[in-house]
Amino acid sequence: MGEFDLIARYFTRPVRRAALGVGDDCALLKPAPGMQLAVSSDMLVEGRHFFAGTDPERLGHKALAVNLSDLAACGARPLAFTLALALPQVDAAWLEGFSRGLLQLADAHGCELVGGDTTQGPLNICITVFGEVPTGQALLRSGAQPGDDIYVSGTLGEARLALDALQDQAAAAALPAETLAAARLRLEAPTPRVALGLALRGVASSALDLSDGLLGDLGHILRASGVGACIDTSKTIDLIATSALSISVTGQFDADYLQQCTLAGGDDYELAFTAAPARRGAVAAAAQASGTAVARIGVVEGAPGLRLIDAQGRPVAQRYASFDHFA
Amino acid sequence: MGEFDLIARYFTRPVRRAALGVGDDCALLKPAPGMQLAVSSDMLVEGRHFFAGTDPERLGHKALAVNLSDLAACGARPLAFTLALALPQVDAAWLEGFSRGLLQLADAHGCELVGGDTTQGPLNICITVFGEVPTGQALLRSGAQPGDDIYVSGTLGEARLALDALQDQAAAAALPAETLAAARLRLEAPTPRVALGLALRGVASSALDLSDGLLGDLGHILRASGVGACIDTSKTIDLIATSALSISVTGQFDADYLQQCTLAGGDDYELAFTAAPARRGAVAAAAQASGTAVARIGVVEGAPGLRLIDAQGRPVAQRYASFDHFA
Repeated sequence: MGEFDLIARYFTRPVRRAALGVGDDCALLKPAPGMQLAVSSDMLVEGRHFFAGTDPERLGHKALAVNLSDLAACGARPLAFTLALALPQVDAAWLEGFSRGLLQLADAHGCELVGGDTTQGPLNICITVFGEVPTGQALLRSGAQPGDDIYVSGTLGEARLALDALQDQAAAAALPAETLAAARLRLEAPTPRVALGLALRGVASSALDLSDGLLGDLGHILRASGVGACIDTSKTIDLIATSALSISVTGQFDADYLQQCTLAGGDDYELAFTAAPARRGAVAAAAQASGTAVARIGVVEGAPGLRLIDAQGRPVAQRYASFDHFA
Repeated sequence: MGEFDLIARYFTRPVRRAALGVGDDCALLKPAPGMQLAVSSDMLVEGRHFFAGTDPERLGHKALAVNLSDLAACGARPLAFTLALALPQVDAAWLEGFSRGLLQLADAHGCELVGGDTTQGPLNICITVFGEVPTGQALLRSGAQPGDDIYVSGTLGEARLALDALQDQAAAAALPAETLAAARLRLEAPTPRVALGLALRGVASSALDLSDGLLGDLGHILRASGVGACIDTSKTIDLIATSALSISVTGQFDADYLQQCTLAGGDDYELAFTAAPARRGAVAAAAQASGTAVARIGVVEGAPGLRLIDAQGRPVAQRYASFDHFA
C-alpha cells in the first residue's frame, strides 16, 4: 500500500464542519463569528511517550486525547485536527487499530480529521488540534489570584503507578493484575476533561492540564500568574486513594510512594484550575454538569513558591520532581 | 538545559498578531472577518527527508518552507505556525542554527511561532502552519477545466539532481562542485512561492505545490478535477535547462535523465496551476507582480489520464515515477 492509498483507506472521511478536509494542500477552517481558534500540538514518540508494542487502538485514542486535554484546559470546544504520522512500515492491522481508536474519540467529541501527513520513519505521532472559544473567554494560566482555591479534576497518579509497574520498578511491581489493568487504562487511554473545561468558562480564574505531574505543572500557573500556592497533601493523597483502583494508602503501598505518584506522576490529563472562594458553588455546578469529580486541594498565595502542608497545617518537605523530557 | 529552558531560549518570542502564543495550553488565533483559516501539516524525518548532518539553519528554513508552500498553493497569506520537535539530545549549536533558519523565514513572511512541543526522540520536525484566505477564494485542486492552460512556476529538477549527486548516483555524480552547491540550495533551502499564490487568487482555476514530482502531483489535480492533461516535454525540459544551473541539455547530461529530474524529481516546492486561456494576461501579471517566472507547459483535456508529447506533438512514452514514501 502506498502513501496515498494509506491516507485514503484509514484517514479520509467526509468533511462535516470544516470547509475543506483531507486531500488538498490545506484544510480550510472558519471559526464561528465571535470565536477564537485555540490551537495546540503534541508529539508522541515510541519509547518515550509509549512502549513499543502498545495496543494501537489505545495509542490512537491517547494521541488525540492528550491534545483534546489542551483544548479542555483552555475551555475550548473541539473542532478539528491534523495528524502527521511517521511509520516504520505500513502495517494494516496496526493502522486499522490506530485509526479506530483515534476516530472513535474524535467522533465522541465532534472533532474532525482535516489533514496531515504520512511518511516513513521511527514511529512518531504529531497531532495539532483546533477548538473554538468565545473571544476573551479562554481559560489561561495567568489568571490565578491570591486567595483563590486550587482544584484538581478526577484522580491522579494511576498512570504513574502503571508505568512503574510495567517497568517493573520495586514500589509498584507488587500491583495486582486487576489493579494494574485499571491503572494501565488511565496511562494508555486517558479521558480528556473537555466537558469540564467548557463548564469552567467564566468560573475558573486559571487552568491547565496535567501532563508532567501536578506540582511541576501547577508551577506554570504560579509563574504565569505571579503568585505562589499552598497545597494540602492530606487532600492530594486522596486523589489516588479514592481512585477506582481502591488502593489502601495504609495497606499495600508506601504512602510516600503514592504521594509521589499523585504529586509528580505525570500523564494524568486531569485539569488543575483555580477559582475565587466566592465561586465554590459555581465550581460544584460545573463539576456536576460535566459529570467530573473535582477536589479542592489548596490555596493561591501572594508569596511566590509552592508550599506543601499536612492536615494539621504543618510544613511537608518538597521532594517530588516533575517530568522533563531533557532532564 | 531542560525542555522548558530550551523552549524559552530558542523558540519563545513576543506575540504580535496572534492573541496568545507560546506558553499556555493552546495558542489563540482569530482570522480577520471574512477570512477562512488554511491549515497544513508536514513532518520531516531525518534520513528520509534530509540527510543526517544537514546544516541546521537550512533545515530550519526548509521545515517551514515546505509548509508555507502548501499555503502558497491555496493562495493563503501566512499567519502563524506550531512546531513539534523530537531531538535526540539538546545540542545548543544545532538549536541555534535551526531556530535562526526557521525564524528568519518566518519573519520574512510575517508568520509567527505560536506554540508546539519538544521531546526527546529520533530527529523529527512537525510543523503545522496557518494562513488566511478570503472565504471562497482558496485555490483548490478541484477546479481545473478542459481547455485550461497548465503552468509551473520557477524551475524544476535541481533538487533531485542535488539529491542524486549527494547519493553519488552515476547520472549526477559528475556534477561540478559549483553546480552542485547551487542545486543543493534548491534541495535544502527551497523558496515557497507565497507571493505568486496570493497573486493567483481569482486567476488560477486550480493549484498545488510540487513536492513529490510534477507528473505525480499533477495527477492530484487531474483526479480532483475529473480531467486529464497533455504535457509538452519540450517545455518541461526547459524548466531545468533554463535554471540558474545553466545545464546544457545536449552537453554534460543525458536529456532523458534531466527530463526524469524535471517530471518526477520531487522536493521542488514550485506551484503547478491551471488557468483559462482567456486569463493568460492575468497569469503574466501575477507572475510579474510576484517576481516569479511561470512557464506554460500543457493543456487540460477532458479525457482522463496524463499524456506526454514532444515539440512536434508526437506521443512520448511515460516512464517517470513520482515519489511515494511507502512505495
